[in-house]
Amino acid sequence: MDTGTITKPHEQLAETLAAEMADVNALIAERMASEHAPRIPQVTAHLVGAGGKRLRPMLTLAAARLCGYEGGHHVRLAATVEFIHTATLLHDDVVDESGQRRGRPTANLLWDNKSSILVGDYLFSRSFQLMVETGSLRVLDILANASATIAEGEVLQLSAASDLGTDEKIYLQIIRGKTAALFSAATQVGAVIAQAPEDQVAALFAYGDALGIAFQIADDLLDYQGSASATGKNVGDDFRERKMTLPVIKAIAVATADERAFWERTIGKGRQEDGDLEHALMLMGKYGTLDATRRDAVAWAETAKSSLVGLPDHPIRAILHDLADYVVARLN
Amino acid sequence: MDTGTITKPHEQLAETLAAEMADVNALIAERMASEHAPRIPQVTAHLVGAGGKRLRPMLTLAAARLCGYEGGHHVRLAATVEFIHTATLLHDDVVDESGQRRGRPTANLLWDNKSSILVGDYLFSRSFQLMVETGSLRVLDILANASATIAEGEVLQLSAASDLGTDEKIYLQIIRGKTAALFSAATQVGAVIAQAPEDQVAALFAYGDALGIAFQIADDLLDYQGSASATGKNVGDDFRERKMTLPVIKAIAVATADERAFWERTIGKGRQEDGDLEHALMLMGKYGTLDATRRDAVAWAETAKSSLVGLPDHPIRAILHDLADYVVARLN
Repeated sequence: MDTGTITKPHEQLAETLAAEMADVNALIAERMASEHAPRIPQVTAHLVGAGGKRLRPMLTLAAARLCGYEGGHHVRLAATVEFIHTATLLHDDVVDESGQRRGRPTANLLWDNKSSILVGDYLFSRSFQLMVETGSLRVLDILANASATIAEGEVLQLSAASDLGTDEKIYLQIIRGKTAALFSAATQVGAVIAQAPEDQVAALFAYGDALGIAFQIADDLLDYQGSASATGKNVGDDFRERKMTLPVIKAIAVATADERAFWERTIGKGRQEDGDLEHALMLMGKYGTLDATRRDAVAWAETAKSSLVGLPDHPIRAILHDLADYVVARLN
Repeated sequence: MDTGTITKPHEQLAETLAAEMADVNALIAERMASEHAPRIPQVTAHLVGAGGKRLRPMLTLAAARLCGYEGGHHVRLAATVEFIHTATLLHDDVVDESGQRRGRPTANLLWDNKSSILVGDYLFSRSFQLMVETGSLRVLDILANASATIAEGEVLQLSAASDLGTDEKIYLQIIRGKTAALFSAATQVGAVIAQAPEDQVAALFAYGDALGIAFQIADDLLDYQGSASATGKNVGDDFRERKMTLPVIKAIAVATADERAFWERTIGKGRQEDGDLEHALMLMGKYGTLDATRRDAVAWAETAKSSLVGLPDHPIRAILHDLADYVVARLN
């Protein structure tokens, strides 16, 4: 796929869904307001206005349209999904003690941790109000379960960090929770609100799940091989935060005794020195764990694409297909 | 009311509702588990097991029973209410940087802020799953609105702290949000799940609202005149945290220029010295603002009692009546 000459898939999606996304953005602006507490829209606007790709709400709109939905509830659900995402970002940045997000200072840095925690809670409650308005108990059930899975994934990540015993199975649980659960809920509720047949609901769930996993593996890989300008993060942030991501897990699985001592010191105990990141990258190169991680991401993108097979033949299906390629194409 | 010789009303409530509260506690234990992240039940058990009075879930059970409910959903709703309460306590303790709660070290002190934030999110999601199981969209609507009001009240409190312009109207908004919203939702959903007539739903909402306000005013008063053994808090915590609670608001409203300078320095700028708390208490004594605050709490307790008039004549109604007295009786 040549991403240089054609419009990127998420841009195609934005173009195709422009009118509905305008409604989503208007609804977000309306619902992040607070009559009594002006700090809420200030903090929210800082993050919502920072130019994220709005990938998750677009997935909800896309799934609903693909399944022939002609009502208006998908706009509410898309805003719901974006509010849940924004709430988790606010809390994540406090938990990770992050200073930068999307190339700008984080809310916890500009205001304080307190504001980030409480405004996150507010947005989560607002998302909940929005989904109740759809009147669909099945949608509420899916999103309640997704919320619990997200929080569980975040807690799991917390206890797995710096634990050299974290294996690929636990890693998959973590990223399914913290990332894929919202992707799969986003696509699934789009199909559910359209009252699509069960096989289409299942297919769109599977697509979102695999896309989210591919997306997160790619993100974790870019942390070691990306550039700050492309990702808005610094190379090695995860190493410094002692996160057990796939490139490290794979390198530890085949480490010699000396190498294991290196990982034990840097990730396990967090006693890092100048040159450690370079040494870690050398070890990943030695065993090809960055390449192996890339292959895993590509395999999940393939799973995402194959999930689309039974869905209606529709221009949006083609874009979702390309989107799966695109998520891993940024790795080349 | 002689609280020395008879059983306290919340103990009477616990006795009357013992069988259902056992179901609520079993459900809480079941739902706070996490297959993948053992830290979740550890943190939750620390707080849930610390022997809170379970006042809020008992209010839900009481309201449902008072309205003649014979189903089982009130148990789910009571557990929902307790989960929401526990989630807000976890986040509050991080926001307030508290070290003690219910006479024990807080979770943020025993584990870390990260765990408190994420486990709070998890419990909030769990509460949401529980309420979805009742299948009542009206209940979901009430609890979604209550959650948003709680978060809004907390943010409002954050921006009002140390702001000498905070008046009694803003104070009422804050405590309605951070405390009364969950009390009124707790009683209201009990009536709604029982499919009680609208006037009973409204009466139980009004009771919970007034009881919650009386409860919080009493709490704020005890911060200045209680003993650590009775409240589990130290006298003057709110003063040190520069919170604009009712006794201070009333003293500032009538302050001379010199006194205003004192409040400006201690609460506004937070430059506190030895003897400042004693001086603040002297000023409150001079203008009788502790007494005036007590009278406000008693007036809200009267409002709570009068809300009960049109409700069915039932032993639980009498206990709720006494409970309103009891909430302010601890001030004598």
